[in-house]
Amino acid sequence: MESRRTGACVAVGSELLGEDRLDSNSLLITRTLAKYGVQMVEKRVVGDSVDKIAEAIRELMGRVDMVVVTGGLGPTSDDVTREAVAKAMDRELAHDAEVEEWVRQRYAACGRVMPEIARRMARVVRGARSLPNSRGAAQGMLISSEGRMLAVLPGVPWEMEEMLRLEVEPELELWAHGVRRVSRSLLLGGVYESEIEERIEPLYGSLGRENVTILAKCGVVRIVLSAEGEEAAALRRVTEMEAALCELLGDDVAGVNVLNLEQVVLGELQRSGSTLAAAESCTGGLLSARITDVPGASAVFLGGVVSYSNDVKERVVGVPRELLVAHGAVSEPVARAMASGVRDEFGAGWGLAITGIAGPTGGTEEKPVGLVHWAVAGPGGVTAMDRVFPGDRPTVRLWSVHSALDMLRRRLVEERP
Amino acid sequence: MESRRTGACVAVGSELLGEDRLDSNSLLITRTLAKYGVQMVEKRVVGDSVDKIAEAIRELMGRVDMVVVTGGLGPTSDDVTREAVAKAMDRELAHDAEVEEWVRQRYAACGRVMPEIARRMARVVRGARSLPNSRGAAQGMLISSEGRMLAVLPGVPWEMEEMLRLEVEPELELWAHGVRRVSRSLLLGGVYESEIEERIEPLYGSLGRENVTILAKCGVVRIVLSAEGEEAAALRRVTEMEAALCELLGDDVAGVNVLNLEQVVLGELQRSGSTLAAAESCTGGLLSARITDVPGASAVFLGGVVSYSNDVKERVVGVPRELLVAHGAVSEPVARAMASGVRDEFGAGWGLAITGIAGPTGGTEEKPVGLVHWAVAGPGGVTAMDRVFPGDRPTVRLWSVHSALDMLRRRLVEERP
Repeated sequence: MESRRTGACVAVGSELLGEDRLDSNSLLITRTLAKYGVQMVEKRVVGDSVDKIAEAIRELMGRVDMVVVTGGLGPTSDDVTREAVAKAMDRELAHDAEVEEWVRQRYAACGRVMPEIARRMARVVRGARSLPNSRGAAQGMLISSEGRMLAVLPGVPWEMEEMLRLEVEPELELWAHGVRRVSRSLLLGGVYESEIEERIEPLYGSLGRENVTILAKCGVVRIVLSAEGEEAAALRRVTEMEAALCELLGDDVAGVNVLNLEQVVLGELQRSGSTLAAAESCTGGLLSARITDVPGASAVFLGGVVSYSNDVKERVVGVPRELLVAHGAVSEPVARAMASGVRDEFGAGWGLAITGIAGPTGGTEEKPVGLVHWAVAGPGGVTAMDRVFPGDRPTVRLWSVHSALDMLRRRLVEERP
Repeated sequence: MESRRTGACVAVGSELLGEDRLDSNSLLITRTLAKYGVQMVEKRVVGDSVDKIAEAIRELMGRVDMVVVTGGLGPTSDDVTREAVAKAMDRELAHDAEVEEWVRQRYAACGRVMPEIARRMARVVRGARSLPNSRGAAQGMLISSEGRMLAVLPGVPWEMEEMLRLEVEPELELWAHGVRRVSRSLLLGGVYESEIEERIEPLYGSLGRENVTILAKCGVVRIVLSAEGEEAAALRRVTEMEAALCELLGDDVAGVNVLNLEQVVLGELQRSGSTLAAAESCTGGLLSARITDVPGASAVFLGGVVSYSNDVKERVVGVPRELLVAHGAVSEPVARAMASGVRDEFGAGWGLAITGIAGPTGGTEEKPVGLVHWAVAGPGGVTAMDRVFPGDRPTVRLWSVHSALDMLRRRLVEERP
């Protein structure tokens, strides 16, 4: 096999060089290129300067097979990516009447008159293919040069994503001559990265270590398997790899090619025709927010209670006052009562509860910062677990949400109707 | 004044070129450099390759005054940043017995014997100052060359942060000869970026356009003001700028040097000795999660209800069934009833409610995707607003949370006891 094609991306925008923002467009670009066997080898962020953008494009076009530039295509005087591309490629920048008409219509469609300044968006680098933007007024550009490709896309993610999919992917497909890099991801819950590494180790010989990537975050581990080649063969290979890993890892595998645990849990609930309600203390709504971030969650998620105070735990979730007094709000009996209480109160098939101390203060010797109890109430009864999680407040909250979701997932699988 | 010093950073690590992870070390590095008047002009991510890292360092050292490299300093064979620095600077890489002894002791302190491979971490580029690492086993390096500076730090944020603060900052301070860049940020809610731009425009002349940065996200705008020079003078200057802007923008300024709207709202509640409860539909817990992400929120936030179903709106939040039937769940009367209901139910001083259609489905001609109603119930009565927000599900949810928090903020300010 010849060596892999390489790619690089350049994010343009002084706001991406400040103290607050990161370029995140590069993630989807990396994923898209990888599908066609193009490996990302460098990422850059540069400010709104013709010279700096041109310099980056020129250097990268000399090093890699494909460069994707995002941002700097808008109508204001800061937006100089078109000029920079022309300079880097040593080509003319010409006004295109057709593109201007298209831009004019985009403005008209929003009930606005195209400002004179927006005519700048109608300039196209000689020899470039203009890429229509179905979600904005700035067109993109695609340039082929000496077997290399330069794609220039808007910086707004919502616009960039659509253009990458509709305009750049078909070109990549042609370019790849049938070679595909097929990936598959296994999502695992309730496990640690080091433990998974150890269990997988014996398989590295047959899978190929370079084809297995392990990513972990607060109790959720993702294993990404890849194979490259002719599409059908690569698919077969990756399916074999998946089967080998699933056999090895058993119930720890929450799902294949799923985004997250909440998606798995919602799918299980949907298939079993059941519903869920949540009661949260230290996670303060994060569990519900994560669940409802999945489109369509409303079909099975009835709602939740954020019971930050004991009074709310008692009145809204129905936790008996005696339990709160005897064991304290952060305790296994209270976690269990919250799960049962919210299940009853909301008339749900399942109740999920979390109570703990997220920190940075509020810990005691007996109940340190990071101590979290979680519980699941369902048709088969109530189960509970606890742990002292390491890290700061957001980290403890994330560990808590992942742990609770994973416990529910395992119960849903065990008690499938 | 001479032109500003410039900086760049390079994050090393193939894992930062994948589909999941971004380099975030650059944010703190940018902030630290900015304090001493060094402006970040380029950021790069490169893989674990001697040639690629060396190429990046060489190019950037030729362009900017300071380069910060993070990552690739560990003990494994992937960790080749030391070799790359030596190559880029054309200097020898020599074993340093003192550093080896230090590394050996770091391992010993954790009860481990230093593995042979870790001796690599004791190699130092000729002429570099070795930077001790109080949180890990990999030392950093600082190299001065022709008036320019190269700092090489570990990639682990926890280690990088400490080394940046303890070892690099003092060098920057010396290097800056008393020049400081002082910043102040104004947080605004319930406003649009374009509107704020227009209102500030007349002040640009006196403030200096380059000293004002505007960042906007879904209804929240941050204006960052900066002044550079001798510290006391820069502080005075930025205080004058702040006063001018606060006078111009009035109540739209939610706070100065605050992180976010929830922090402002919690502060107001604390000062007035009042409490808050939230009822959320389309935001599904995000509002509560954002509020409770602030340490100490439990002092004033009693809790919330995620009322995803009509039944929960009725039973748990006390929304009259007639309202739900007559107007539908996404309506002003229901938003008002949710705010009052959750206030009563939780016995809180203030009730905050959101109901809407976050999409991607569920819209109708009369009530399109993006339509959101929010309401505040407090001592002074109930107020409500609505809008059709643009964008995808997460975007609509974020606009909703920001809008509701800002409405509450304004009410809290107006009705200060």
